[in-house]
Amino acid sequence: MTDDIAVTDAKVRIPEGISVRVRVPASSANLGPGFDCLGVALGIYDEIIVETTADGIEVEVTGQAADEVPHDGSHLVARAIARGLSAGGAIAPGLKLRCVNAIPHSRGLGSSAAAAVSGLAAASGLLAEAGIRPPFDPDELVQLSSEFEGHPDNAAASVLGSAVVTWTEQGGPENRYRARRLVVHPDITATVFVPDTESSTSFTRGLLPDSVPRHDAIFNVSRAALAVVALTSDPTALFAATDDRLHQGYRAEAMAPTAALVAELRERGFAATVSGAGPTVLVLSIGPVPADVREVASASGFVASTVAIAGGVEISRSSD
Amino acid sequence: MTDDIAVTDAKVRIPEGISVRVRVPASSANLGPGFDCLGVALGIYDEIIVETTADGIEVEVTGQAADEVPHDGSHLVARAIARGLSAGGAIAPGLKLRCVNAIPHSRGLGSSAAAAVSGLAAASGLLAEAGIRPPFDPDELVQLSSEFEGHPDNAAASVLGSAVVTWTEQGGPENRYRARRLVVHPDITATVFVPDTESSTSFTRGLLPDSVPRHDAIFNVSRAALAVVALTSDPTALFAATDDRLHQGYRAEAMAPTAALVAELRERGFAATVSGAGPTVLVLSIGPVPADVREVASASGFVASTVAIAGGVEISRSSD
Repeated sequence: MTDDIAVTDAKVRIPEGISVRVRVPASSANLGPGFDCLGVALGIYDEIIVETTADGIEVEVTGQAADEVPHDGSHLVARAIARGLSAGGAIAPGLKLRCVNAIPHSRGLGSSAAAAVSGLAAASGLLAEAGIRPPFDPDELVQLSSEFEGHPDNAAASVLGSAVVTWTEQGGPENRYRARRLVVHPDITATVFVPDTESSTSFTRGLLPDSVPRHDAIFNVSRAALAVVALTSDPTALFAATDDRLHQGYRAEAMAPTAALVAELRERGFAATVSGAGPTVLVLSIGPVPADVREVASASGFVASTVAIAGGVEISRSSD
Repeated sequence: MTDDIAVTDAKVRIPEGISVRVRVPASSANLGPGFDCLGVALGIYDEIIVETTADGIEVEVTGQAADEVPHDGSHLVARAIARGLSAGGAIAPGLKLRCVNAIPHSRGLGSSAAAAVSGLAAASGLLAEAGIRPPFDPDELVQLSSEFEGHPDNAAASVLGSAVVTWTEQGGPENRYRARRLVVHPDITATVFVPDTESSTSFTRGLLPDSVPRHDAIFNVSRAALAVVALTSDPTALFAATDDRLHQGYRAEAMAPTAALVAELRERGFAATVSGAGPTVLVLSIGPVPADVREVASASGFVASTVAIAGGVEISRSSD
């Protein structure tokens, strides 16, 4: 539990030459009615290899957004590693970080949460390899990554894999981020429709009103409960279970092609939702999305890919 | 499906002397965050015995509220039978109806929905016994009883038993009431705390605002999704999964002792919620509620009873 994550002033130094490898899945959050609370892990993976060094921070990035991210200690993964080490009461004199990124950035596929999770998981591995403490348990990783990145439905999906329900408990000195993993029904296929445009979560969040009609709230409450049924035991309910009145409509103006594609796909009976804060569209279906439907999306500038429902973050020795 | 429920002008007359018996469970709706969409069937049963006669309507009621309900064709069960027969294209020249009521009235335990379900189920049985049509399937009973009584989370729980998620699809000429049954985790025990006061659903519904803070909506969305997890696979999450910001707070003024008992029980760590529109309190727990806690409730005028999670409505020949 996170109560055990002591942040002490006296830091243990991790010896140089310790190395871990982490693989983390992408995620789709805000699933249908489940704004801020329903996420699913998707089989697009970032990998990082971290090695402790004598001093300095060296960052090498290949793949998605390699030229757009900083290559020093301000890199998101490097900051997450530092946070994780700090939570474990340690510091590393130096780090060499290699990132191989496959998760598209700013597309609503949880790349920031995946980066946070990968860094914290790497820290967990380094702490354990150095014999300083046991690895963080999944609840600790959910807490640390959600605190760090701010989207528990993305972070928990990347930590735990499969699909997740997350909720936040307030009242203490800081938010407690909670999650439960769902076992996704094996008949469910996920397809992402990724456009060549980006979206800003902080901008789109600003489009949401402070108050909503009670009937819309109740609408989403019922569909979110149904979503758990549909994801775990009855995929025939996916269409109804992905309907929403609390976020996608308000944000449609910021991503017209995405809103149009969701509408078009739902018109054809597919359980389509905006992935995260968009602009990617996620479809959950029983069996693959037919080629003619993928072509409709393609004509609108969206690249369709069938992706696996992924397992959670994996930590291994880099020599493995 | 309800599309098959033809209401025709030309009614088939059911012969006299056909008789069925129906047993229907109570229910607790508005379960925690699940306003209008989460219900659970409880092992308190009303029974009815219906026999077709040559003419007239004779109603005999024993048990709960026997002296407070009409004893003619305006009795809720009698009206539900007529509605069910009509939906099946039939009429009965006369009816003899015996009701043995155990579900307390106006306590938030779904007695009205149970009455509707029992009458519609009896009609289903009469239609089948007379060879006019097969029994209504569960989806048809959910639709007919929800239309008739207005609370699908109560009605579906009484029809299907166990716990249910319900939702309403609008857009056609009439609402389509949908439900999915959950398999309740066997470790869960239900306890009702019934006071000697009544509550009016229509009055308490009027206390709800037309719009709600978005954060409260999102709060309930996450807890409703969690409630399905807690009810089916992880009862340790029941406490968080029964938290609510959309209805109980607004109605507290109308039932101060109920609100106080819910607060007291939650303070002690029990997953307590207002049952339906109150004033009964429902606790879902792993194992029974301890005697000292039941005594606290008793001192406040609430009678505590452990009740089974019930199966759905049962229809049998009255000679069975």
